[in-house]
Amino acid sequence: MNSSISQSQCKSMEFLNKEQKLIAKFKSLVGSSGRFIGDDCALLPGKMLVTTDTLVELIHFDIDWTDFIDLGWKAMAVNLSDIAAMAGRPKYALIVLSAPENLYESEKIISLYEGLNSCAQQYKTAIVGGDITRGTQLAITITIIGETHEAGVLMRSTAQAGDIVAVTGDFGASAAGLRILQNNPKAAKRGDLIVSFPASTDLQYGYCLQQFLRPQPKLEESWSLVEQIGSRGALMDSSDGLADALLQIAQSSHVGMHIDLNSIPIHDQTRHFAESININPIELALYGGEDYQLVACLPKDKWLAWQQESPIVANAFKAIGTVNESPDVQLMFGNEIAYKLDPQRIFQHIS
Amino acid sequence: MNSSISQSQCKSMEFLNKEQKLIAKFKSLVGSSGRFIGDDCALLPGKMLVTTDTLVELIHFDIDWTDFIDLGWKAMAVNLSDIAAMAGRPKYALIVLSAPENLYESEKIISLYEGLNSCAQQYKTAIVGGDITRGTQLAITITIIGETHEAGVLMRSTAQAGDIVAVTGDFGASAAGLRILQNNPKAAKRGDLIVSFPASTDLQYGYCLQQFLRPQPKLEESWSLVEQIGSRGALMDSSDGLADALLQIAQSSHVGMHIDLNSIPIHDQTRHFAESININPIELALYGGEDYQLVACLPKDKWLAWQQESPIVANAFKAIGTVNESPDVQLMFGNEIAYKLDPQRIFQHIS
Repeated sequence: MNSSISQSQCKSMEFLNKEQKLIAKFKSLVGSSGRFIGDDCALLPGKMLVTTDTLVELIHFDIDWTDFIDLGWKAMAVNLSDIAAMAGRPKYALIVLSAPENLYESEKIISLYEGLNSCAQQYKTAIVGGDITRGTQLAITITIIGETHEAGVLMRSTAQAGDIVAVTGDFGASAAGLRILQNNPKAAKRGDLIVSFPASTDLQYGYCLQQFLRPQPKLEESWSLVEQIGSRGALMDSSDGLADALLQIAQSSHVGMHIDLNSIPIHDQTRHFAESININPIELALYGGEDYQLVACLPKDKWLAWQQESPIVANAFKAIGTVNESPDVQLMFGNEIAYKLDPQRIFQHIS
Repeated sequence: MNSSISQSQCKSMEFLNKEQKLIAKFKSLVGSSGRFIGDDCALLPGKMLVTTDTLVELIHFDIDWTDFIDLGWKAMAVNLSDIAAMAGRPKYALIVLSAPENLYESEKIISLYEGLNSCAQQYKTAIVGGDITRGTQLAITITIIGETHEAGVLMRSTAQAGDIVAVTGDFGASAAGLRILQNNPKAAKRGDLIVSFPASTDLQYGYCLQQFLRPQPKLEESWSLVEQIGSRGALMDSSDGLADALLQIAQSSHVGMHIDLNSIPIHDQTRHFAESININPIELALYGGEDYQLVACLPKDKWLAWQQESPIVANAFKAIGTVNESPDVQLMFGNEIAYKLDPQRIFQHIS
């Protein structure tokens, strides 16, 4: 498999280890009350879900590749996706902005707020507080407070052998979008290509750009899922790539998986773009990251029943494999093992 | 009055206006759901209080003047103080750290976490989540989720003419501590002065340093207050100085105040330090900031009853003035108006 992506985009193990070590040390400091650090959300009494995340300029985004309104949208969307990843419903958002002083009077900051607000409104989340402060780098920190479905909550650690692995959409498009913007920064600026692309039919990679710039948290899909299966299943989002999501679920559930390579959904534009730069589209799908799709494991009988009872709703998910008792996540071509996912190889953001 | 502090420490109106304009624009964008932006906490259904705040290197702190363990303590304490400012009780904290990569393997970050954790533990707050990311500047963003007292919540906007103005402690010590550290950065380093100062009797300004480095949120005091008076009163903390707290309450409650200059508590060390650098101690008390005391307005009859019923508890507050119907906050020497607080003159942090 072509590894050109992995060299530029995969987080060095050294740095990843540093981050993991720090989180582990901190967890040991705070004791059992900190048991959710590192997961998508903290699950608190009263069916409360809380998540907080930060996007830092040049680490998570580059304003040469994105407009401020899209940046605001995405910052909110990726945080809402953490609530989707536990099958919850967002209720409130708080926003802390650190910004260089020269941005304070710029229309850009208003655009950023507009983007944050339009995404929050779209997903019925009330912005209830926040703070703004100066800083040398633009950074957006968002806290989301939500609630779990009364049917339960879906974690990463509760997949079981025999479960179906199902996903909400295609993979690799966002990574393709990022690369297109890196090669053509102007594409991200309003008034240029993007402002018209949702309506445009002739923009070759409009879908990929939209997936990168305006991801849609899969809140409805996860809500329907937990309604159908309760808490007997596993779930997370694919913010750090499909490979990462599969491995995280497998490792924390102590299971393995067979994933059918031919079943992993990849959009035509993604395929076309990957081929145009001479890499295997599967590379983008597995390691590209920032797709914000859901990766679910659910009991086979419930999966089949769901498809019979509500084929349209169930249709939001597509089966790509099965959970088993092996120690690995194996990618299959038919009945043949093509590849084992390497836990050492993980997506990182732009820097 | 000597204005040497005001020139170096007061936020320029120009910058303040920019910040306020931005917050106003954002409030207008998000509509009524954003009505709490700019206040200490958002008050949410289910008696929930939420606050989020960020401390950015060189804006809010300078690691030449503070040790990492103290920085962690203070970051947590100032956020907890926002809960105290609404007479609530903190329950959960989430911490987002942005840090330069070279700090990742340093013991400093562990010290920072230790400080955050020890303050959280002291005030019975469970750290339940967080994130760590790279950034060029060290920044600590904390979200606190708390709950209100069943007797109600105390806001800034509910002072009434006739109320007593009362405070929980002395003012200006933290500002004195900052100036001492600015002149003697080594004083902040563990193993030097600070590590022993709580026990030391011969450290001339130990109290001022402790007030700056390890502020104590007045959670018990505000909890007792609301238990006593319910929601008929007003409250905020003095994070941005006593002058700012008095003005904020007066302006949002549409009242004035008479404050007795001789009643404002000022510690002997603060007085001594102010005189040693030739400024009026009242300047430090009014505009110094970062004291994290409470400033309360409460009905006179309840104030008197409280002192009779629970003199020890009520003793946590000291009366410094009265609320009236004038348009100003007037500082009095006896019956004579010495000074009107100028709403244009406001504390800012170190930068």
